[in-house]
Amino acid sequence: MSLPPNPPAIILVRPQLGMNIGAVARAMLNFGLTDLRLVCPRDGWPNPEAGPSAAGADSVIENARVFDSVSEAIADCTLTIGTAQTTRDMVRRVTSPAGCVAEMQALPTKSALLFGPERTGLVREDLLKCHAICTIPSNPDFGSLNLAQAVAVLGYAWVMGQAAPPPTWLVNHDGPAAQHELTGLIAAIESRLEANGFFNPAPGKAETARRMLHNVMTRPGFTGAEVQFLRGVVRSLVEPRNKNGRNLAEPRRRDTP
Amino acid sequence: MSLPPNPPAIILVRPQLGMNIGAVARAMLNFGLTDLRLVCPRDGWPNPEAGPSAAGADSVIENARVFDSVSEAIADCTLTIGTAQTTRDMVRRVTSPAGCVAEMQALPTKSALLFGPERTGLVREDLLKCHAICTIPSNPDFGSLNLAQAVAVLGYAWVMGQAAPPPTWLVNHDGPAAQHELTGLIAAIESRLEANGFFNPAPGKAETARRMLHNVMTRPGFTGAEVQFLRGVVRSLVEPRNKNGRNLAEPRRRDTP
Repeated sequence: MSLPPNPPAIILVRPQLGMNIGAVARAMLNFGLTDLRLVCPRDGWPNPEAGPSAAGADSVIENARVFDSVSEAIADCTLTIGTAQTTRDMVRRVTSPAGCVAEMQALPTKSALLFGPERTGLVREDLLKCHAICTIPSNPDFGSLNLAQAVAVLGYAWVMGQAAPPPTWLVNHDGPAAQHELTGLIAAIESRLEANGFFNPAPGKAETARRMLHNVMTRPGFTGAEVQFLRGVVRSLVEPRNKNGRNLAEPRRRDTP
Repeated sequence: MSLPPNPPAIILVRPQLGMNIGAVARAMLNFGLTDLRLVCPRDGWPNPEAGPSAAGADSVIENARVFDSVSEAIADCTLTIGTAQTTRDMVRRVTSPAGCVAEMQALPTKSALLFGPERTGLVREDLLKCHAICTIPSNPDFGSLNLAQAVAVLGYAWVMGQAAPPPTWLVNHDGPAAQHELTGLIAAIESRLEANGFFNPAPGKAETARRMLHNVMTRPGFTGAEVQFLRGVVRSLVEPRNKNGRNLAEPRRRDTP
């Protein structure tokens, strides 16, 4: 059989056991996935305990890259889907492995699949960076999957998804923006809100407000052009221009993050 | 979700490592499979090394039954399917995990799924006792799956086989805002952009910009709470507040459309 092109990055967030990282590498290569990224692996990297359970998937282990944050790990990705059994009370699109894979296979750009630490899974702050959540249908009374087994199930879905017809995509949709573009927009809004005292009136609720901001800006899956447009909107809301397009208030700020 | 009734027996033929048997038990219970049978486990049974990797699937471990031969293990089954990456030169029907599960779910009687030893997989004598062979689609250059991962893939197929492909759905989502709420938000943004000269610099493109504004605000399907939140964001971007939540610039505008 032939493997689908353009596989997603597999991102392990704060993985605990080297043995599990090796088992993930094996499961990945079984299904043609090769781009392994590690965010803050507990025991550092490289980890000699990964080798034996990789069982020959050495190339995946050797090419694994380490990042200090989820944001950095997904910076080049246009679609990020986090695996979780719960949405932790957030408004997020929830998809199945098959649905998740269909979305990724419809994109010409890089996508990412996030898996949380063995003990807790992805936490709220991780899921906030995801456009959707993938839930593996399982026993409601015993739903916690082993990390590498979860990767194997998604890998299987990846290989199987190939045959499925691609989903209907939005017309004139050039795909979601790269994560760093979106992060830049959110940072621009957030810094201005900060300066304007938006987070001050209710200190206890400031964190909730920040989370909601990230949530409402991430979920829509804005395109690159839309993100640029929204940066212009924010700039204009903040800084009036005269009819010649010149700012009335202050010099146009460079909004690069 | 509800699990499909009448699950197959999972039969491990000459399994080698207790740790793997435990991991199989966990994967089984994740997907509602509970009938574990062991044919000649290498290190005997019970095996204390199975417990930790079972990670709570103790009932599966405790109820596992040991047999001296494949024939005895499948004696009560009407359909036996062996997992293998090759047919070992035998004439056998080859099916996929989904096809295998569909056959089993069509039967009111007991079926069995056979998995071979870690090192070799099922041998010819084992496969001779099977009605069909199930091959997990995988990388032709790296096709050997970890035992428990193979069980997890079949378990996932078992749960998925039950229903039509699940639709994408929203969790904790109280539905999109009423149109008038959304229209109010867009009008508030638009009137401020108008006042600030956003549509002036390129008159020919003003209509495109207006359309884009409506598009990016409508497509996400913001909830009512999110629309209210975004109105607060826009208000703060436009009108700084002091630490007591009072506007510094001008009286708070009534933003009702």
